[in-house]
Amino acid sequence: MLSSVILAELTSAVGADGIIVGQNQLHTYECDGLAALRTIPAAVVLPRSTAEVQTVVKICARHRIPFVARGAGTGLSGGALPAAGGIVISFSRMTRILDVDIPNQRITVEPGVINNHVTQRVSPHGYFYAPDPSSQTVCTIGGNVAENSGGAHCLKYGFTTTHVLGLEVVLPTGELVSFGASTLDAPGYDLAGVFVGSEGTLGVATSVTLRIAKKPETVQVLLAAFDSIAAAGQTVSDIIAAAILPAAMEIMDRLSIRAAEASVHPNYPDAEALLLVEVDGSAIEVETQMQQVRSLCKTNGAWEDRLAQSERERMLVWKGRKAAFAAAGRIAPNYIVQDGVIPRTKLPVILEEIGRMAEEAGLLVSNVFHAGDGNLHPIVLYNASIPGQEEIAVDLSMRILHRCVDHGGSITGEHGVGKEKQQAMGYMYSEPDLDTMQRVRCAFDPQQIANPDKLFPRPRLCGEKTGPYQLHPLEREGTAEYF
Amino acid sequence: MLSSVILAELTSAVGADGIIVGQNQLHTYECDGLAALRTIPAAVVLPRSTAEVQTVVKICARHRIPFVARGAGTGLSGGALPAAGGIVISFSRMTRILDVDIPNQRITVEPGVINNHVTQRVSPHGYFYAPDPSSQTVCTIGGNVAENSGGAHCLKYGFTTTHVLGLEVVLPTGELVSFGASTLDAPGYDLAGVFVGSEGTLGVATSVTLRIAKKPETVQVLLAAFDSIAAAGQTVSDIIAAAILPAAMEIMDRLSIRAAEASVHPNYPDAEALLLVEVDGSAIEVETQMQQVRSLCKTNGAWEDRLAQSERERMLVWKGRKAAFAAAGRIAPNYIVQDGVIPRTKLPVILEEIGRMAEEAGLLVSNVFHAGDGNLHPIVLYNASIPGQEEIAVDLSMRILHRCVDHGGSITGEHGVGKEKQQAMGYMYSEPDLDTMQRVRCAFDPQQIANPDKLFPRPRLCGEKTGPYQLHPLEREGTAEYF
Repeated sequence: MLSSVILAELTSAVGADGIIVGQNQLHTYECDGLAALRTIPAAVVLPRSTAEVQTVVKICARHRIPFVARGAGTGLSGGALPAAGGIVISFSRMTRILDVDIPNQRITVEPGVINNHVTQRVSPHGYFYAPDPSSQTVCTIGGNVAENSGGAHCLKYGFTTTHVLGLEVVLPTGELVSFGASTLDAPGYDLAGVFVGSEGTLGVATSVTLRIAKKPETVQVLLAAFDSIAAAGQTVSDIIAAAILPAAMEIMDRLSIRAAEASVHPNYPDAEALLLVEVDGSAIEVETQMQQVRSLCKTNGAWEDRLAQSERERMLVWKGRKAAFAAAGRIAPNYIVQDGVIPRTKLPVILEEIGRMAEEAGLLVSNVFHAGDGNLHPIVLYNASIPGQEEIAVDLSMRILHRCVDHGGSITGEHGVGKEKQQAMGYMYSEPDLDTMQRVRCAFDPQQIANPDKLFPRPRLCGEKTGPYQLHPLEREGTAEYF
Repeated sequence: MLSSVILAELTSAVGADGIIVGQNQLHTYECDGLAALRTIPAAVVLPRSTAEVQTVVKICARHRIPFVARGAGTGLSGGALPAAGGIVISFSRMTRILDVDIPNQRITVEPGVINNHVTQRVSPHGYFYAPDPSSQTVCTIGGNVAENSGGAHCLKYGFTTTHVLGLEVVLPTGELVSFGASTLDAPGYDLAGVFVGSEGTLGVATSVTLRIAKKPETVQVLLAAFDSIAAAGQTVSDIIAAAILPAAMEIMDRLSIRAAEASVHPNYPDAEALLLVEVDGSAIEVETQMQQVRSLCKTNGAWEDRLAQSERERMLVWKGRKAAFAAAGRIAPNYIVQDGVIPRTKLPVILEEIGRMAEEAGLLVSNVFHAGDGNLHPIVLYNASIPGQEEIAVDLSMRILHRCVDHGGSITGEHGVGKEKQQAMGYMYSEPDLDTMQRVRCAFDPQQIANPDKLFPRPRLCGEKTGPYQLHPLEREGTAEYF
């Protein structure tokens, strides 16, 4: 509970219509896309400007109140989960496009702007914004920055960090700073780079300058059906080795194909594995490359290779793929979407291991993945009403991530660590690695009020660290959930 | 002077043949490519392994001795300039290629490996390492990492930071850490990203994992001659607007053309401005795009557009461009190579301003630039034997950088801040921006012994900052050179 003094300060900062304290309304903000973890915040504020954000953060700093920024709440790792007794800063009112500079290929937006709206705004000029998380019709640029969001087309175009040129940031102390520049490669430390993907622990972005890309002349997507995931995976390696860089290369397994079919009817072939290859560029380049891709598919045993014949058909192919997570609900009452990365060549090994671990756990795991990037999305299916099954599912999904690390990969490609995977960070990084990150965190947030108790493994942080900074009381009191 | 105790410790760390203390030999290390600034170090050590680097850094940390890592010493901003009384850690003995992983498109090298040797190593497999500073036949990967080096082909392929997947780093405390990962987008803070371009102030890399790129099927370079730089600049904008992304787009003005011609005889046309456009990709794509590029050149008044007819001829075209800095010595006794960035659309304005400022200063400025990136390299020509002219040249080159900032650009694109431009950082960034960088620096280097008195404007750092960290004595005693 916040004192009446603090509530009065917050109300004065954002206006009476800019603060939510009613319990019923607060329930809306108790979780993000990781609905298994819920905490009701003490208050939600809805600032309209950078100045208001700054005032709110200064109030939090003065009273040492934890805060977390929230865009659309679509995150999958609990990054926007509130701290108990903390404040949520919602960006639902900061949705302005501030500047559009077509000749220099950039656009400046407030963090509440929806990912897709950026493309819509620049599309008439022949441009688009490349990062395309599956949630792109609702998720916000602020959230994308926090998570360094990816998407199917990041294979060719790169993650959010590649597209963020500059940021205006309110630090956890309330100071306003600028990171990066509107041109490439700003001197000094790349703090824009360190901020992108910092999951809300280093401050709050209030304005983001993004690079936009020229729309390709032609885009084609191929659907190829295989009798095994290994064959589809080999095709991906062959395409890369042939010096073709498709805009996207996705693999879906039988379970996820069926789920997508049941959900949005994309008319997928009923195969063991489906490979989606999208190629973009000039008409002549796309035609040449697509011929090579089809030939590599056939070499690897594809029994169907179907080119989308219209933009409508292409969109339907992608709708199926992007619905894959939500569609899991069609085949199981509950599911955990995981997000590991492996070197591309380890694909056959890890898939075999996931199959074996799933069998041992008595659960089904469906797989969709950004195959070109080696970014897996195993979807662990379970039934929470069966006692003990949720724990088994959580345990299985964590063990899958550990295997990714064992293979020289990583515990997350694009969904972030958040609350969900903080323990797994200790599996991936050494103590000195994590110490260094922690010192950087303290450089930005000496009081540890910005999205505390996320991203880093808590038990380590709860130790009596030497140094000038203290842990936030919430962190000292916490206990780990998963281990 | 180092005490005999410290010298004994260092000798024990790297062996008697791994330490240089003789005055004559030390002269070799007194400056890098910015020869105007010179300081003789107290000692140079030549470690052979990560363990030896760690031991040396621990000795430095224990005795609070400043150190700077040195590759080939080709840097242009004084980044490898030793601190008085400090140690140079030379990487001339750490030149091993540690791992080559072709299927996953990566290579791991020691920091002393020469840029070009990376490409040579992977070339038989059809790959290359993209960043190509003009000094690529001698400069090292360690130096490239420190400066986030660019090069002509970074227009399409990105700077060093795009190609560094992971790093092994000895922190200024002597701790050994790993940043990044061998796969994309590691979780937690992007400390690999913050380390690349940190100019030796955050520690010393001892192993670097790089992304390699597939060699394109075809490469063609076009030389187009124009009657004005404005016309060449407009052509660059038109090419970008046509959704063509050349591998490189360079402009040279009359002075730099003549200098290159006098130096390496690349057989350039004698024009007011020369535009080099290199396109790579599949044969059919290159042919199509080159046709478009030639047509845009003609539309903008190119009176010659010459395609290099052989690989030998293409190499000669590039040899001329890459020799442009050194060739300035053919037309003036002394010169300062500057490195500013502007939004591409500001090219005509800044060139006119540079011309006017040069005229007022009574000096000649030749211009070569990475036009696609908006990255200018004005070369300020002067004669140091004329009293006062060097000061005028330094002043002019700094004022050019300030104008770049005024236009929304930056004080360096790829040469770094180093010792040369530390004051200009205060022109580009606000106090809170610099404070934030300083706090990050302190998170890595609480004693400020890693390449101290570089990168940040010294007067600001000399103030009585609050906070837990103290400035290094060398920084407190220092005075600014340029202002």
